[in-house]
Amino acid sequence: MKPIQVGLLGIGTVGSGTFQVLSRNQEEIGRRAGRAIEITMVADLDTARARSIVGDGVRVVGDAREVIANPEIDVVVELIGGYGIARQLVMEAIGQGKHVVTANKALLAVHGTEIFRAAAAKGVIIAFEAAVAGGIPIIKALREGLTANRIQWVAGIINGTTNFILSEMRDKGMDFAAALKDAQRLGYAEADPTFDIEGVDAAHKATLISAIAFGIPVQFDKCHVEGITRLASADIRYAEQLGYRIKLLGITRRTDKGVELRVHPTLIPARRLIANVDGAMNAVVVQGDAVGATLYYGKGAGSEPTASAVIADLVDIARLDGADPAHRVPPLAFQSSTLAAAGGDLPVLPMAEVVTGYYLRIRVVDEAGVLARITGILAGAGISIDAILQREAQEVVSEGTAPEGTQGIPQTDLIILTHDTREGDLDGALAQIQPLPTVLAPITRIRKEELN
Amino acid sequence: MKPIQVGLLGIGTVGSGTFQVLSRNQEEIGRRAGRAIEITMVADLDTARARSIVGDGVRVVGDAREVIANPEIDVVVELIGGYGIARQLVMEAIGQGKHVVTANKALLAVHGTEIFRAAAAKGVIIAFEAAVAGGIPIIKALREGLTANRIQWVAGIINGTTNFILSEMRDKGMDFAAALKDAQRLGYAEADPTFDIEGVDAAHKATLISAIAFGIPVQFDKCHVEGITRLASADIRYAEQLGYRIKLLGITRRTDKGVELRVHPTLIPARRLIANVDGAMNAVVVQGDAVGATLYYGKGAGSEPTASAVIADLVDIARLDGADPAHRVPPLAFQSSTLAAAGGDLPVLPMAEVVTGYYLRIRVVDEAGVLARITGILAGAGISIDAILQREAQEVVSEGTAPEGTQGIPQTDLIILTHDTREGDLDGALAQIQPLPTVLAPITRIRKEELN
Repeated sequence: MKPIQVGLLGIGTVGSGTFQVLSRNQEEIGRRAGRAIEITMVADLDTARARSIVGDGVRVVGDAREVIANPEIDVVVELIGGYGIARQLVMEAIGQGKHVVTANKALLAVHGTEIFRAAAAKGVIIAFEAAVAGGIPIIKALREGLTANRIQWVAGIINGTTNFILSEMRDKGMDFAAALKDAQRLGYAEADPTFDIEGVDAAHKATLISAIAFGIPVQFDKCHVEGITRLASADIRYAEQLGYRIKLLGITRRTDKGVELRVHPTLIPARRLIANVDGAMNAVVVQGDAVGATLYYGKGAGSEPTASAVIADLVDIARLDGADPAHRVPPLAFQSSTLAAAGGDLPVLPMAEVVTGYYLRIRVVDEAGVLARITGILAGAGISIDAILQREAQEVVSEGTAPEGTQGIPQTDLIILTHDTREGDLDGALAQIQPLPTVLAPITRIRKEELN
Repeated sequence: MKPIQVGLLGIGTVGSGTFQVLSRNQEEIGRRAGRAIEITMVADLDTARARSIVGDGVRVVGDAREVIANPEIDVVVELIGGYGIARQLVMEAIGQGKHVVTANKALLAVHGTEIFRAAAAKGVIIAFEAAVAGGIPIIKALREGLTANRIQWVAGIINGTTNFILSEMRDKGMDFAAALKDAQRLGYAEADPTFDIEGVDAAHKATLISAIAFGIPVQFDKCHVEGITRLASADIRYAEQLGYRIKLLGITRRTDKGVELRVHPTLIPARRLIANVDGAMNAVVVQGDAVGATLYYGKGAGSEPTASAVIADLVDIARLDGADPAHRVPPLAFQSSTLAAAGGDLPVLPMAEVVTGYYLRIRVVDEAGVLARITGILAGAGISIDAILQREAQEVVSEGTAPEGTQGIPQTDLIILTHDTREGDLDGALAQIQPLPTVLAPITRIRKEELN
């Protein structure tokens, strides 16, 4: 069978990894795919650098459109990133009848509906294993490995940068700013880390997972996004004392009313396997009604781990190129004609409708009656308490953490874990607790998931 | 598209789970597969019981050959088990041009070559996700998700019964016999647990993993098989003190000389994620050259978890039925024409050629010079020592564990961890150490893997 010809758009970290792995493992990959997979053309603005990576056997051009226009090219691999030019090029490649592989989670989370529709109309494959959790074949697991199941929820550590920072904060007692600097120094965080630390990258991935798990369109604009920048090392410590770890999770869950879709720091029981995923590693737990919980773990980023996912997509395409589209797996797992409408039967729920547990840290005046007042308000709102931790006032004062203007006041941290609560109800209760004169600082609220 | 019609051979635990999950999630599975999947015929010796499970809509017969002979049936699901009648029926179903799904690891590990060859000749699919690690889509991950990689090694907890027993021994300080009884009482071990506790079941699965990972034929007869029946709780305790846990692992590794294929109790560092997989759960770590280590975790047995894998195979078949075989994934991951010959370039190595670390527990007379003599012999054999743990003689004696006939002798346990050593070299050294008059009991030797 004739080799499948691949054109790369962009040859940075992932592109060069893809080229290297394909070259190194050429023979073995061909034995699996049943035909050779060859990168025959590369487009990059820096043609000299591109040339130095791929050598003389590959055509290097500065204009991506030359790749797309080349009738010899079967598959276009988009590794440019972002929503701008990448979107145009992907749409043009589809228009030219090319299969497309992309690692671009942002593009698909935001413009996926348009892109998947165009690919279906043109009868080409759009594959994106590399867009979620790097080298972990989580898209394949969800889309093909767990097809028997009604998926109940998925929860994942899907951003390595933030997991590295949280691990550093926990292991070394660092605060966020210091851990971020460490991560930047070691290459785990970019110079501008906003997308990672604010949870946006994880939200792109959670959006894709949600669509595949539940048969709904990608709806990034409905995802609740909260990063780790406001997390205090004190909260990590208190969580630990209560038997929990704090991880930035992307969570999507099906309920009677719709689908939860959210990214935020989350307390999880320390004994769960996923709580022990440290450093820059990723892991995703999928709960299905037949299989129960399964977990997938590995490197979520990096040159060759991400290339591993890109090439797995290329092998799938090498096999299915030329087959009737009915023989292929739909990009979002469900046949496109059966996807629920956005906002239809399975709307993405507003956060007020989310039901989960909560960790509350409340800096209060250390005097009789304060605890009773607060727990009374919670009880009044129908919120049930799972655990309370109250620190010695002496200890708190000696730390010098008294908020501005309260230095003279005897004070303590009151930590409360709630049972499952509707977020709207908690908001109502906190709106009553926050203004109390005995509450000395803004209340910290972190969501808690038992993941069982 | 017309529904795909499935016939079940055997409707025990997995068969009834398959029927139930397919019925319950019919609509969702159909939306994924693009066509309905219907169990229209069931063969079981106990037709009354079968009838009570499937109701009136399904044809129930006592003779499996009626299912195979039925031209309406597209896929035969073999859930009988064993090598006997199951083998004949699978071969007959293939002969009749049916696709086959099976959970029968024993059959495929022993007769896989013949079966895969027959299926290829007939152009039908043989699928067996359920044969390894139950509901975890590990076959799909290895065969399709990691196709970019040269696989270096795979190590897995692939038998839930033994993992449950080892977890009990560790958590509760039980000995093997008591933990086995517990496992039987709770339904985690069968009345005759031989296949599980002697490692045979894990060896069947490791054999399949090995073939898929390295492109070699199934060679169960070459697999080293060692169970957990001789494991003492003392070893679990000592391992713990040295920072290790003991798990029954199925391991297969590619070396310059060939392929290691072995099942045995193994010390692994307690900080590895897989060391924290407890109870009846399964987990498999795959090390690939591009992706690094990935891990897959979930339920390895049980009615619905196993059914989840059977149905995933049915969905794949529903999609690929009618497609040119070139569009399908080869059953052992590599195109059959490119499988290495058994004993060819990649022979399965004898244990003497395996290189790994070792844990040694040696009951010795507590006197000067004993340690020097033993470490001298190890050094002479070129074996390098990683750690030594020597218990207080007093403590050992008070335990009353002195071997028969040595009660009066002051004695102690000497625990040695070695660096990577060729097993043949270790055998040679132990043959010198065992007869020493200062060695009071048979030496315990457990292999150790760092898994990094």
